[in-house]
Amino acid sequence: MSSRGLWITVEGGDGSGKTTQSALLMAWLSTLDRTVLHTREPGGSEVGELIRNIVLHHRGHIAPRAEALLYAADRAHHVATVVRPALERGDIVLQDRYLDSSVAYQGAGRVLDATEVRALSMWATEGALPDVTVLLDIDPVAARERLDAADKPFDRLEAEKLEFHTRVREAYLALAAAEPERFVVIDAQQPVEEIAQQIRARIESALTAA
Amino acid sequence: MSSRGLWITVEGGDGSGKTTQSALLMAWLSTLDRTVLHTREPGGSEVGELIRNIVLHHRGHIAPRAEALLYAADRAHHVATVVRPALERGDIVLQDRYLDSSVAYQGAGRVLDATEVRALSMWATEGALPDVTVLLDIDPVAARERLDAADKPFDRLEAEKLEFHTRVREAYLALAAAEPERFVVIDAQQPVEEIAQQIRARIESALTAA
Repeated sequence: MSSRGLWITVEGGDGSGKTTQSALLMAWLSTLDRTVLHTREPGGSEVGELIRNIVLHHRGHIAPRAEALLYAADRAHHVATVVRPALERGDIVLQDRYLDSSVAYQGAGRVLDATEVRALSMWATEGALPDVTVLLDIDPVAARERLDAADKPFDRLEAEKLEFHTRVREAYLALAAAEPERFVVIDAQQPVEEIAQQIRARIESALTAA
Repeated sequence: MSSRGLWITVEGGDGSGKTTQSALLMAWLSTLDRTVLHTREPGGSEVGELIRNIVLHHRGHIAPRAEALLYAADRAHHVATVVRPALERGDIVLQDRYLDSSVAYQGAGRVLDATEVRALSMWATEGALPDVTVLLDIDPVAARERLDAADKPFDRLEAEKLEFHTRVREAYLALAAAEPERFVVIDAQQPVEEIAQQIRARIESALTAA
């Protein structure tokens, strides 16, 4: 997205350390002489919170395409009213999850076609793509061990879950391989401070280039 | 949409008599030995009502693409959970407004591209199209006179509104011309009972053919 600001998204599977690394990056960005906005999807705007409430808290079934369209509506509004204006003001926007999440998770879920889900997001946002996407890559077994100290064996359902998360990881890595300029892939099994430093290095060079 | 049921949509500009004709058609359909469902968009499902609330009652601005995506989400859910199951059971579904409304109004509003809005609806519904679409066609000036007995001259804003409704009408007629098998175009300036009879004749032949 061409603008005066810098747009960073943080992506990765569950247990990859996104929350920790976003907070560390935010702390570092706050020491720069720049306005920094930390936002997320779904949600991140007033309309977005209303949509998030439908998607996350509606008790009944929501048709898969309806759900994808609700996420896309949230994204359209968020980009148009929050992200784009901030970037046009020259701010730094740090965002937890964006279209790569939709593509990786929908593709892994195999209910909807990932290419179509991506096209929907691109239409929603008029093709807005981040300047830098940090992908925290981790083996789902390691992520699971990190999330869950108890070392119980996988039952059938959990084996299915592991397979799903393996597909999410593969989808993320394929996205990163397709757009090497935008993505920085970080081994999320390294020590926390090591990861934070690698992310800062990539953002620093993006800030210098901008 | 291939199915055992029959799906009828009623379209037309404001003041074309959709409500009256839907009610008359519904009354007639109710005399047949068939299950008949009368539904509408936006709304028409529980999730749809939540979405309708956001679109119609949110006080702040909603980004145009977000609004189009919310309507598409409502449509996706409505078709997947209400219309399609009814048609698969063999019911008759009578629906006030469907994708032709989105295409005609968005196209006339000229904010979003009508072709894209149509593609969005088609993705949302997996290409579901009605068996018969009744288009109540009326000159916007006549529709206005019908809606508003007072014969005051148009001011600037009203001239713009007239132009908008003229574009809606043209868009509807273009859609009908592109799909003559699906559409029946009815001159909505005829007497109410005359119109109702022409609609019934079209639906009768569709029921015989099915």
